[in-house]
Amino acid sequence: MAAELTAHQLIAQHRPTLDQALEAIRTRAYWSPHPEHPKAYGENGSLDAVAGKAAFDALLGSRLDLGQPGTDDWVGGETSPYGIELGVTYPHADVDTLLPAMRAGQRAWRDAGAEMRAVVCLEILKRISDRTHEFAHAVMHTSGQAFMMAFQAGGPHAQDRGLEAVAYAYVEQVRTPDNAEWTKPQGKRDPLALTKRFTPVPRGVALVIGCNTFPTWNGYPGLFASLATGNAVLVKPHPRAVLPLALTVQVAREVLAEAGFDPNLVALAAERAGEGIAKTLATRPEIRIIDYTGSTAFGDWLEANARQAQVYTEKAGVNTVLVESTDNYKGMLSNLAFSLSLYSGQMCTTPQNLLIPRDGIRTEEGPRSYDEVVADLARSVGGLLGDDARANGLLGAIVNPDVKARLEAAAGLGEVALASREIANPEFPDAVVRTPVIVKLDGAKPDDQAAFMNECFGPVSFAVAVDSAADAVALLRRTISSRGAMTVGAYTTSEEVEEAVQEACLEECAQLSLNLTGGVYVNQTAAFSDFHGSGGNPAANAALCDGAFVANRFRVVEVRREA
Amino acid sequence: MAAELTAHQLIAQHRPTLDQALEAIRTRAYWSPHPEHPKAYGENGSLDAVAGKAAFDALLGSRLDLGQPGTDDWVGGETSPYGIELGVTYPHADVDTLLPAMRAGQRAWRDAGAEMRAVVCLEILKRISDRTHEFAHAVMHTSGQAFMMAFQAGGPHAQDRGLEAVAYAYVEQVRTPDNAEWTKPQGKRDPLALTKRFTPVPRGVALVIGCNTFPTWNGYPGLFASLATGNAVLVKPHPRAVLPLALTVQVAREVLAEAGFDPNLVALAAERAGEGIAKTLATRPEIRIIDYTGSTAFGDWLEANARQAQVYTEKAGVNTVLVESTDNYKGMLSNLAFSLSLYSGQMCTTPQNLLIPRDGIRTEEGPRSYDEVVADLARSVGGLLGDDARANGLLGAIVNPDVKARLEAAAGLGEVALASREIANPEFPDAVVRTPVIVKLDGAKPDDQAAFMNECFGPVSFAVAVDSAADAVALLRRTISSRGAMTVGAYTTSEEVEEAVQEACLEECAQLSLNLTGGVYVNQTAAFSDFHGSGGNPAANAALCDGAFVANRFRVVEVRREA
Repeated sequence: MAAELTAHQLIAQHRPTLDQALEAIRTRAYWSPHPEHPKAYGENGSLDAVAGKAAFDALLGSRLDLGQPGTDDWVGGETSPYGIELGVTYPHADVDTLLPAMRAGQRAWRDAGAEMRAVVCLEILKRISDRTHEFAHAVMHTSGQAFMMAFQAGGPHAQDRGLEAVAYAYVEQVRTPDNAEWTKPQGKRDPLALTKRFTPVPRGVALVIGCNTFPTWNGYPGLFASLATGNAVLVKPHPRAVLPLALTVQVAREVLAEAGFDPNLVALAAERAGEGIAKTLATRPEIRIIDYTGSTAFGDWLEANARQAQVYTEKAGVNTVLVESTDNYKGMLSNLAFSLSLYSGQMCTTPQNLLIPRDGIRTEEGPRSYDEVVADLARSVGGLLGDDARANGLLGAIVNPDVKARLEAAAGLGEVALASREIANPEFPDAVVRTPVIVKLDGAKPDDQAAFMNECFGPVSFAVAVDSAADAVALLRRTISSRGAMTVGAYTTSEEVEEAVQEACLEECAQLSLNLTGGVYVNQTAAFSDFHGSGGNPAANAALCDGAFVANRFRVVEVRREA
Repeated sequence: MAAELTAHQLIAQHRPTLDQALEAIRTRAYWSPHPEHPKAYGENGSLDAVAGKAAFDALLGSRLDLGQPGTDDWVGGETSPYGIELGVTYPHADVDTLLPAMRAGQRAWRDAGAEMRAVVCLEILKRISDRTHEFAHAVMHTSGQAFMMAFQAGGPHAQDRGLEAVAYAYVEQVRTPDNAEWTKPQGKRDPLALTKRFTPVPRGVALVIGCNTFPTWNGYPGLFASLATGNAVLVKPHPRAVLPLALTVQVAREVLAEAGFDPNLVALAAERAGEGIAKTLATRPEIRIIDYTGSTAFGDWLEANARQAQVYTEKAGVNTVLVESTDNYKGMLSNLAFSLSLYSGQMCTTPQNLLIPRDGIRTEEGPRSYDEVVADLARSVGGLLGDDARANGLLGAIVNPDVKARLEAAAGLGEVALASREIANPEFPDAVVRTPVIVKLDGAKPDDQAAFMNECFGPVSFAVAVDSAADAVALLRRTISSRGAMTVGAYTTSEEVEEAVQEACLEECAQLSLNLTGGVYVNQTAAFSDFHGSGGNPAANAALCDGAFVANRFRVVEVRREA
C-alpha cells in the first residue's frame, strides 16, 4: 500500500515544530505551538466552536468503531459529571487476538527511525489539535472540568505535554549515532577497524492506564513517549473517561495508516463495568511499559506486580502550602483562593494543607492572626465564587460520588472556616457543583494529624495551625517523605524561612512555587518548562518530562563488523 | 578548611578531557585518555612497573585504614587465585554509624553542581590511572586475570568505563539549564513572568555491589555514575576481590577531602566471611541506588526486594555464536579460539554455545562438516595455548573452586572435542590454570538442551549441532529471551542468514558481532563506543553506558517565583 503521507511531507511539515520543541526543552523558556484561545480555531482545517460542538454531539449515542482486530463486544456507559449520558460504545478487545496483532507492525515502525516516528506523532498531535473544540467537550463530559479548563488543559496543554514527550524521546534516541567508524591504533601494526550500526529498538507493547480527571493531559506523555520510541501502545482508559482517549486512538490509527504503518500500533482496551482489565493487561508478558495515573493503592500494586514492565506511576500525594509571611497579602489570598477552587480541587497538584503559624503571620499590612488569615482566605474564596456563573466556570463538576462523599465528611473533621456550597448549573441541572470547604486543624493534635496527613482528594483544604515556621518546615518534610507531594507552595518574606523551605524541597525532592500572587498558580505546570512531579517522592516515580521518562522505553542494539 | 584543590584548578585540568569524552559518546569513534601499554606509565607522577609492583607488595599484609567513621572491626582474608594470601585487612563498618555519616556531606556535594562533580570524578580517575600498575596487581590477585589483562581491563579499560559514566552523568544533568526566564504573553495584559531555578538532586546513598572477576571494570560505571550525579556511594566489594575497590575508595576519599568535600561521600563496606552484608545494606532505607554484577539469583532477589532503590543489575546470560559460513575460515577459528581462551572463559561476554549446522558449513576452502569444524576449532585452541607461557598469559587462573568444579563436570555432559588441560605456572605454583573444554552437544536432544541452555560460567563451550541456519536462529532467539545474553556472535556469508540473525538480535535485544576474524573479539567492548549488554534481555537490566543508566540516579527540583 502506498502511503498517503510520505516521509518527505511529514518531515517538511513537522520538523520545524520538532526543532522548536527541542530548543524549548533546552532553554525551558515559554513556548507552545497549540493556541489556548478557543477563537484561534476554525481555519486551516481546524474545527471552530460550532463545528467542534457539532462533532461532539454527533458522537453521542454512537458506536466508535476503531477497526481493531479481536473486537468481541461493544461496551460503554459513560455518564457525564454534568449529568448527561454519553451513550458512546467502544470496541471490547479479545486481548489474545489484539496483543499479537499490535506486534505485527512493530518492525516497520522500528525501522522507520526516530525522526519519522517523531513526525508521525506530530501529525497525530496536529490532527488532535485541529479537533480541540471537539476534544474539549469530550474532556468536559468525562472529567467534569468546566468547558474553558477542559478546552485548555484537555486540549493545548495536553498536546504540549505530548509534544514535549516526543521531543524528549527523539533527542534521547539520536544521542547515539546511527553508524560509527571505530579505528583503534595498534602502533606499527594496522589499526583495528570496525563499522558499527546502532538501532533504537522498542521494548514491546506499552500500556497507558488513563485517569478520570485528566484523560488526555495525563495520558499523552506516556502514550507519545512510548510510541515515539518505537513501541506499540495499548490505551486502557478509565471507564468513566473513555471518549477523549478513544478519539485519540482513532486519530493515531488514521495517521499511522495514512503514513503506511500498521494502525494496530495504537489500540484501545475499553472494558465492561467492573471488568478490572487493567490488572490482567498489566501482567501480560507482551506489556513491557506501563504508564499509570491514579490511586496509590493500584500504583503500588503495579510497581510490585508488573515486574516484566517499566512502570511509570503518578499516585496520590499531600500537597502543602506554607504561609509564613507576605508582602502582598491580597495577592496571596486571591492566588490561593483560585488554586483551591479550580476544578473543585480535583487536581493532583491542588494544595491540601495550608500550614499557618498559630501566632499568625506578617504582612505588608501588619500582622494577621491565624484566625484572621483563615477567615480572610475563606472570604477570598467566597468572593471568587460568589457569582454562580463564574463559580460554575471555575469549579466544574464533582467527578464522582466518592469525591462528593469525602467533601461532605470533611466538615466533620474540625472547625469549618468555609462551608462548601451547592451551586446550580442552569445548563446542566444534574451537575454536582460544590465550592471548596476549608477546615481548621491543629498540627499538634494527633487526631487532626491523622486527617491532614492523608490525601483527601477533592475540594477540601485544611488550615493547619503550626507552632512556628520551623515546625511548618519539619511538617512539610514529614509530609513529603511519608505521603509524597506533586507540588509545594510557600509564602515568606524571610530569607531564612525561604532557605529552609527550599532545602526541604531539595532534600525531599518536591517542586516548589514561591510567593505566587499573580496569574500563575501552584497547581499549574507548563510543558517544556515546568516539571510535573519530581519522581523522587512517593507521589510519583517519574517526572513529566525528563530524560528518565523516555530513556528506558527503548534500548539500543549494536551490530558491529570489521571495516 | 580551605580546599587544596580548587574548582578552578580542577576545571582547568579536566574540562578538556570531559569535553573529549562528551564528543566520543556522541560520535562513538575510538577514543581513550588512558594508555593501554604498561610502558606508558612512569612519568608525570604515574607509577612505572617497578614502582607499581612495589606499591602492591607494600600493601600485602597491611591494614588499609580508610579513616571511615563507625569502623568496629578489621576484616580480610583474600587469597589470590594465584595462590598467595593477600593478608590485607579493611575496616568493617557499623552501618548505623557509617550511613548517616555518608549523608552529612551530600548537601555540599549537591550544591557543587554537575561540572564540579564531574571534574572531581576525573581527578579520582586520574589518580587511579597513575597507579594503574599497582591496581593491575590488585586485580590480578583477586580476579585471577593474567597480568596483562588485569592491567588493561582492570586499568585503562575500567577507567574508560568510569569516565564514560561521568560523561553521561554530566550531559544528562546539564540538559536542564540552571535557570530559566519564562514569559507567557497574555494578549493586551501584562505577560506572566516567572524565574525558575533547576537543581539536580541526588537520590541518596548508592550501593555498589562488586564482583569477583572484574572488580574495577564492572564497579566503576555505577560508582562514578552515582557519584557524578550527587549521590554518596557505599562500595560493597566481593569478599574475594576487596583490594582493587578498597584502593579506589581510598583514592576517592583523598580527592574529595582535598577538593573540600566530605570524604565520607565514598566509603567501603567490607565484610566478615559469611556475613552476607549485601542483603542487609540493599534494603536499608538510605540506599536508593544499587549497582550489582553477579549471579542471576541474587540479582533477581535485589530487583524483587530492594524496592526502595533504583536497581541496575548485570546477571548471568548464555552467549551464543552462530557458525554458518565464512570466507575466512582460519581467521574465524583463531578469533573464536582467543575468545574462548581469554581469562579461561570467565567473562560474562565469553561465548558458551557455538551453533553449527549438523550438515556442516561453507568456507572459502570448501565445505567443512560439523565434526571438522569442531575438530579444527579444538586444534586452534590447542595451538593458541600450546605454549605454557603464552597459555598462562592468556588464561590467567581459575577464579574460584566453583568454576573448577563446573569445568570438571562439563566433560561428562557429552563427547569431549577438546579436553581441558592443567597448566603449571612457574611463578605461582599454587595457581589453578586450566585450558577450556569444548563439548559436543545436539540441539535436538532434550538432555543436551538442559545442559547448554544454562550458563556454565568458566572455560566451558558447547559445540551444538543444529539442523539448519533457521534452526540456529530460532535457538538463538529462545536462548536470548529465556536465558539472556551479553553478547551474540555470528559467522555467515549469506545475506539472508545475516539478516535473520540481525533481526533476532534487534527483536530479542542483544548486541551482535558479525564475522570477527581479526584482533577484535566478541567478548570485548570498548567504552565510549560499544554498549556492554543491552538492558533489554534477562542478562542485564541496564547497558554500559547510556542515558538510561544515569538519568534516574538524580532528580531535578524546580523552584519558581514571579519575576
